[in-house]
Amino acid sequence: MCPRPANVVSAEKKEDSTKKQQPLETINLDQGDPTMFVEYWKKAGEKSSIVIPGWQNLSYFPNINGGNICWFLEKEFSDEIKKLHELVGNAITKDRYIVVGTGSTQLYQASLFALASTDDTGNDSSSRPMDVVSAVPYYSSYPAVTDFLKSGLYKWSGDACKFDDKNEPYIEVVCSPNNPDGHTMTPVVNGNRGKLIHDLAYYWPQYTPIPKPADHDIMLFTVSKSTGHAGTRLGWAIVKDEKIARKMTKFIELSTIGVSKDSQYRAATIMRAVTESAQSISLQLAGNFFDFGRKTMVDRWERLRKVASENGAFSLPKYSKRYCNYFGEIREAHPGFAWLKCNLENVEDCESLLEGKLKILVRGGKNFGMDYKKYVRVSLIDQEDKFQMLLDRLSSVSSSSTKIKA
Amino acid sequence: MCPRPANVVSAEKKEDSTKKQQPLETINLDQGDPTMFVEYWKKAGEKSSIVIPGWQNLSYFPNINGGNICWFLEKEFSDEIKKLHELVGNAITKDRYIVVGTGSTQLYQASLFALASTDDTGNDSSSRPMDVVSAVPYYSSYPAVTDFLKSGLYKWSGDACKFDDKNEPYIEVVCSPNNPDGHTMTPVVNGNRGKLIHDLAYYWPQYTPIPKPADHDIMLFTVSKSTGHAGTRLGWAIVKDEKIARKMTKFIELSTIGVSKDSQYRAATIMRAVTESAQSISLQLAGNFFDFGRKTMVDRWERLRKVASENGAFSLPKYSKRYCNYFGEIREAHPGFAWLKCNLENVEDCESLLEGKLKILVRGGKNFGMDYKKYVRVSLIDQEDKFQMLLDRLSSVSSSSTKIKA
Repeated sequence: MCPRPANVVSAEKKEDSTKKQQPLETINLDQGDPTMFVEYWKKAGEKSSIVIPGWQNLSYFPNINGGNICWFLEKEFSDEIKKLHELVGNAITKDRYIVVGTGSTQLYQASLFALASTDDTGNDSSSRPMDVVSAVPYYSSYPAVTDFLKSGLYKWSGDACKFDDKNEPYIEVVCSPNNPDGHTMTPVVNGNRGKLIHDLAYYWPQYTPIPKPADHDIMLFTVSKSTGHAGTRLGWAIVKDEKIARKMTKFIELSTIGVSKDSQYRAATIMRAVTESAQSISLQLAGNFFDFGRKTMVDRWERLRKVASENGAFSLPKYSKRYCNYFGEIREAHPGFAWLKCNLENVEDCESLLEGKLKILVRGGKNFGMDYKKYVRVSLIDQEDKFQMLLDRLSSVSSSSTKIKA
Repeated sequence: MCPRPANVVSAEKKEDSTKKQQPLETINLDQGDPTMFVEYWKKAGEKSSIVIPGWQNLSYFPNINGGNICWFLEKEFSDEIKKLHELVGNAITKDRYIVVGTGSTQLYQASLFALASTDDTGNDSSSRPMDVVSAVPYYSSYPAVTDFLKSGLYKWSGDACKFDDKNEPYIEVVCSPNNPDGHTMTPVVNGNRGKLIHDLAYYWPQYTPIPKPADHDIMLFTVSKSTGHAGTRLGWAIVKDEKIARKMTKFIELSTIGVSKDSQYRAATIMRAVTESAQSISLQLAGNFFDFGRKTMVDRWERLRKVASENGAFSLPKYSKRYCNYFGEIREAHPGFAWLKCNLENVEDCESLLEGKLKILVRGGKNFGMDYKKYVRVSLIDQEDKFQMLLDRLSSVSSSSTKIKA
């Protein structure tokens, strides 16, 4: 996440605009900003609203913690997490520890801290910086977030596929469905002393089939991608090992002395609304949240694939069909990002084409560990007007050249 | 901040409780948990409440940023910060940059990151870990928060008074009024290449006279201590240098991709209520927030000093009187913590006395860099019932022995 200054930036207008063609507005599809879901929440009504009186949430301590070992976790939030996972069937929460974080980015760092300071036998250890790897193309933030403090506990070591496993402890991050390319991932190093972090931010039925509940040592989720509330900055980890959960809690205590209670109560309200919408208990007007999400993503992917197949200038990944337990049908993935490949022979750098000529801010493949510049990641979860502008501009590219049709 | 399991923990009750003396409840006055202010906010009414509809704050980006270089800062929050400082007269904000953080703890780390990666001429640099010092007794969290990731950028180097200035860049943290002892502080090293962080969490008129607006390179504030909303996890830095402000922003982007918008809007609402209460615009029932704060702190300090002078077992710091521009009168400090010294000859360890015999969780002097065990820090900003229990238990100690009077 390297934010650009604005979502939509007007390119400077020429003085004599009546005579010349209107310059393109720059549209920002660099981040995965989940504003697509605003449309749903505008219809969802009062059940999704929260009122916080001035006298609430003053203490550092939760109003009710309910015996969670994460001392700053509100029970109401952890209860809603468990209910939602139970309903969706995408993660095991029984006999697991929940750790709340200021977004899954903080929980990723908490996981590194916990794993890198624990040896194979579960004891404290921190002899040397532990290698952290993930298969290319990996989520573009992992390298910078791992290395920005030059920690003596862990260091980014790049592509898991090229990792030289010396039978020493290492950490592999498995992002599934993968950001940027949407594919289902499994660990690639499979060393004896590997420790795994599963980043499951997109393992929700609006993006991908849910064949079974995930059940890994550390699983990271976030409201940003599940319900669309990125501005609430809230994520959660589901953790098997108590000692690791305690260390992750310690990390967040030292980093930010816990997590906003206002955000936790708001997220609990939103998640309850999602669960109830899927149980047809309420939010009838807005309908089942996941139906909305799936329908929107299917529609966008169909329109995007149509544009790509019509002009031949770009290609998109193919996803195999799998049975989705949540929707009770065989379906393919409709990821939150398009991992777009540029097929134009005379274009070496797809990012430059999109940003320079089409005025679409995207994230180039090199950010994801790729040498090859033909790939870019484009967000598909922004608002409809921006998605339509994306289609219009991609359509304007001729398959035989970089010329943009009038 | 090393949290204890609960605010009030019932000690195990004996079976035959009718025959034996009821065991003391443990009371937690270890953290500075600002629940004293709940009483005020319960009277403050609707002006201090916030309603957040489900469709708001979805984007990572602010609803309105207003050109702040901190890209995730909501203009509404920064406007209220400036208004409140203008009203109180405790900090210069004109021509300064505001950076929002998940509490001032995150901003402290953002400051270290920014300062340690910048050389004397303002260029990027990170050749060796930069020394970080603060005068003893320093805030107990500084060492752990500085060192927990074993950063190659900075390292905790202890007492500023004992720092060996080798004419290399270093960072001095000046906490004023000082946590734990409430004294007004100025830098002590005063080296040519020193960089300063001013932690002004308690520089508010409920705790200390405000002789003039603070005007330092980096000043840290938090809603936890200003309005009492610790659970909102929100702080702000006022920064002179643009490059430092940008680096602090980068730190928070990498650490947590910004700061909860829900918390920012809630804090803006609360701060507006404080400002309006002090301008007598609204909140008549609850009155001026700072009047409430001052009155409560003055009352508590009078009662505490009375207990201390009556039994002679404990002594408290003395604060010189200064003119407070906000209240327009000469007054002394009434800090949020008591820095309590145990005068009992046969008691070496004041923390053990309070925690063991009196069942009051406090923070011992060693956490603040003291060798001497006679000091403890006790929170005075918790709820009234706990404060009264503190007084009752301190009163029970005889000045001539550790015996607790029945």
